[in-house]
Amino acid sequence: MSKDKGFVTEITPQSEDFSRWYIDVIKKAELMDYSPVRGCIVFRPDGYELWENMQKELDQRFKDTGHRNAYFPLFIPESFFQKEKEHVEGFNPELPWVTEAAGEKLEERLAIRPTSETMFGHMYAKWINSYRDLPLLINQWANVVRWEKRTLPFLRTSEFLWQEGHTAHEDEEDARKETMQMLEVYTDFVQNVLAIPVIKGQKTPSERFAGAVDTYSIEAMMKDGRAVQAGTSHYLGTKFAVAFDIKYLDRENTQQFCHTTSWGVSTRLIGALIMVHGDDRGLVLPPKVAATQVIMIPIGPPKTRDVVIAKTDELYAQLKAAGIRVRVDDRSDVSPGWKFNEYEMRGIPIRLELGPRDLENGQCVLVSRVSGEKKSVALDNLVAEVQSLLAQIHDDMFERALSFREENFFSVETLDEYKTAMEEKRGFALAGWCGSEACEKQVKEETGATSRNIPFEPAETKSKCLVCGDESQHTVVFARAY
Amino acid sequence: MSKDKGFVTEITPQSEDFSRWYIDVIKKAELMDYSPVRGCIVFRPDGYELWENMQKELDQRFKDTGHRNAYFPLFIPESFFQKEKEHVEGFNPELPWVTEAAGEKLEERLAIRPTSETMFGHMYAKWINSYRDLPLLINQWANVVRWEKRTLPFLRTSEFLWQEGHTAHEDEEDARKETMQMLEVYTDFVQNVLAIPVIKGQKTPSERFAGAVDTYSIEAMMKDGRAVQAGTSHYLGTKFAVAFDIKYLDRENTQQFCHTTSWGVSTRLIGALIMVHGDDRGLVLPPKVAATQVIMIPIGPPKTRDVVIAKTDELYAQLKAAGIRVRVDDRSDVSPGWKFNEYEMRGIPIRLELGPRDLENGQCVLVSRVSGEKKSVALDNLVAEVQSLLAQIHDDMFERALSFREENFFSVETLDEYKTAMEEKRGFALAGWCGSEACEKQVKEETGATSRNIPFEPAETKSKCLVCGDESQHTVVFARAY
Ligand SMILES: [Zn+2]
Ligand SMILES: [Zn+2]
Repeated sequence: MSKDKGFVTEITPQSEDFSRWYIDVIKKAELMDYSPVRGCIVFRPDGYELWENMQKELDQRFKDTGHRNAYFPLFIPESFFQKEKEHVEGFNPELPWVTEAAGEKLEERLAIRPTSETMFGHMYAKWINSYRDLPLLINQWANVVRWEKRTLPFLRTSEFLWQEGHTAHEDEEDARKETMQMLEVYTDFVQNVLAIPVIKGQKTPSERFAGAVDTYSIEAMMKDGRAVQAGTSHYLGTKFAVAFDIKYLDRENTQQFCHTTSWGVSTRLIGALIMVHGDDRGLVLPPKVAATQVIMIPIGPPKTRDVVIAKTDELYAQLKAAGIRVRVDDRSDVSPGWKFNEYEMRGIPIRLELGPRDLENGQCVLVSRVSGEKKSVALDNLVAEVQSLLAQIHDDMFERALSFREENFFSVETLDEYKTAMEEKRGFALAGWCGSEACEKQVKEETGATSRNIPFEPAETKSKCLVCGDESQHTVVFARAY
Repeated sequence: MSKDKGFVTEITPQSEDFSRWYIDVIKKAELMDYSPVRGCIVFRPDGYELWENMQKELDQRFKDTGHRNAYFPLFIPESFFQKEKEHVEGFNPELPWVTEAAGEKLEERLAIRPTSETMFGHMYAKWINSYRDLPLLINQWANVVRWEKRTLPFLRTSEFLWQEGHTAHEDEEDARKETMQMLEVYTDFVQNVLAIPVIKGQKTPSERFAGAVDTYSIEAMMKDGRAVQAGTSHYLGTKFAVAFDIKYLDRENTQQFCHTTSWGVSTRLIGALIMVHGDDRGLVLPPKVAATQVIMIPIGPPKTRDVVIAKTDELYAQLKAAGIRVRVDDRSDVSPGWKFNEYEMRGIPIRLELGPRDLENGQCVLVSRVSGEKKSVALDNLVAEVQSLLAQIHDDMFERALSFREENFFSVETLDEYKTAMEEKRGFALAGWCGSEACEKQVKEETGATSRNIPFEPAETKSKCLVCGDESQHTVVFARAY
């Protein structure tokens, strides 16, 4: 046991230092490593596989809603950014520039894409001629770069992976429908696949995407009470269409500007799921994206080893055939106790233990990573038991995260009240806001919290601005954010 | 008919100008478009989907052989390239450099990766300690950039998409086994999925990957007789291990350098499959990667339209349920003739026609894109008929490409003979080679052809060098290449 304990204490407890806990866990579970390039990480296989599993789920949803994938250039000419004023102001401070290639200075600097509205805009102007070409619904899976001053693995890195949807529509109604549809797709994915409850809402003007008319987001609460923006969907109006001349001939034979949208989620979701579900023993992975859903560990003395392993292999084949992602660790030079800790640390949803006594009784033991509960189940019903426990674990994780959020969601009337609350505990605050940028700014300066969004369904409606006390225009969620 | 003919003649015939035919086809079929960045293309949805389908097939093969995916940074510090002398010499002329970011000049220039041996090398040195960590088998799907002077969509672009496998092993034997295994994986994929016959062999020293001990390739013949290198697999020896200090403690507790490999295929395979299979009517897509395998076209007069469409929908559901990628074009404002041409041009393997007379007879017509043959099949056996025809089409395409290659593969004794042959026709030549770089260079200067590879299984063994007449060391395939 002492060895086992020593193993786990390599991870800083969350209560001691949440940031250190996070770094300890992702390094120890081999999800990432730092690279020699400032602010860029290496996604190691166990980390990348989480992203691959997310991609599969999202990609299917995008295709089911009529989108197709494409790939646009990494480089964006400097002149493109100039075309949409707010866009260039928003992204210029973060751009890396290619100035030389193949031994020669370039005539025009090329930015590494921070997002691709401009490149899509340029191409859409070429491709769209008539209302028959609309809606144009394209998604791209790509790497993007934003040269960040302060970085944090997965949550904020200079290079990251993401998807960016870009769509063009005949009119505002259709574009807004798309914007909301994709927000719903993200909500469904984050809640029902990653088991993370989110708050859907609209961003305040100061937190909008650079160049958007309206930005919508889903916001999630981490275990330290801070927020992560888990996905955004933007209605861009005709801003990019005007900047890039994306026009079409309508049904009355008149030239019209398209209404466009964009929407994206990124590898920061890997960081979010770790910070929402992890505990002092390590990762807790949502079953639907866990690379391994069940780790099988044969136990018992050497003399029964062969028969236990034979049965393990047989059950492994059954589970695998049922589409369950399963692995066996039958190493004999490592103790079961070490393995238990190891796979708990790695967040594998179910541990399956099988020993000689179990075998005699025609059963095995399933242990849930999230609740720690052990359960003996009949071997002849194993597939169904595992499937049902995986579903249960997903639900448990969602409920747990939801309870945590509810416990750390406080309602405030004034800025002072909010400051006091933030001194004692961390979390999200619901407050009234008059709509002035000055009041929003003051909240940020005095508490470090930003407006996360104006929730569609606030728990209550606030009547006064928390800063100036004037009549509230919106009920807003404030939080410190990653 | 005149309209139909006019449609097809928008594509330049292959015999008139193969390069123009190629560009006409890929633009008309909307596989790509030129981007505003020199040498970078946009992969449009119909082109990108070919790549997605290739990725699925390859990724499964990589995983089946024990590899896992990861993601490494886009940027490579300049100092990394300096570490392996041949590598830097090979890639330096093609690198784009980031020199500024976020408004500041960088202390060290960052290259955009042209390939990632150096970055993998750096990380592998950190991760590998003991023989227990070996073999380390990682693949990456990524964009890479090589600033090319002359570009051709898909076949040679400044930015392209690829996968790069990087593995580390205990000894030469194991690394060489991996190198050959991946060459086999590529051969299997290109032949059995893309229906392209390839010649497996070893590259001559002058055509090796920059930094490799040995490079192996598979080479395919395009319809203009030129070669495309369809995949490469490199045994890197301990060169990168020494450069990046990738060492491990062996079973005898001694420090050893790892032996490493790398291997890759890229989006140039899209170009290859178009140039191998396409004809004067447009694309001919291999069924296993075609985004749409069957296009259903209901025909007949307006009065029977409803009943024909109802049956079409029913059959569509059957085909889809069987995992066949099927689409329906039931537009009434476009003639069947126009549709026939359109989907032939887009290379869809099977056209399914269903009219009122067919319906009465309980049958429909299947038309093969590759042979043009029409066949009436019973509706109650449709799924099996379609599956069998898709398999047949794959085989037909492979056989056709193989026959073409055999017809355009000539055996030569001397350089003069080769020059004469290249004046009359185009194709691959099999010839003896003494092994001297001077002779190889002379072939290139006088014919434009390079040594493609030293085939493992040449049709015959040549005894004299085609240039100097000395005793042949190798029997080599020469060809002009893309
Ligand atoms: Zn106020
Ligand atoms: Zn010679």
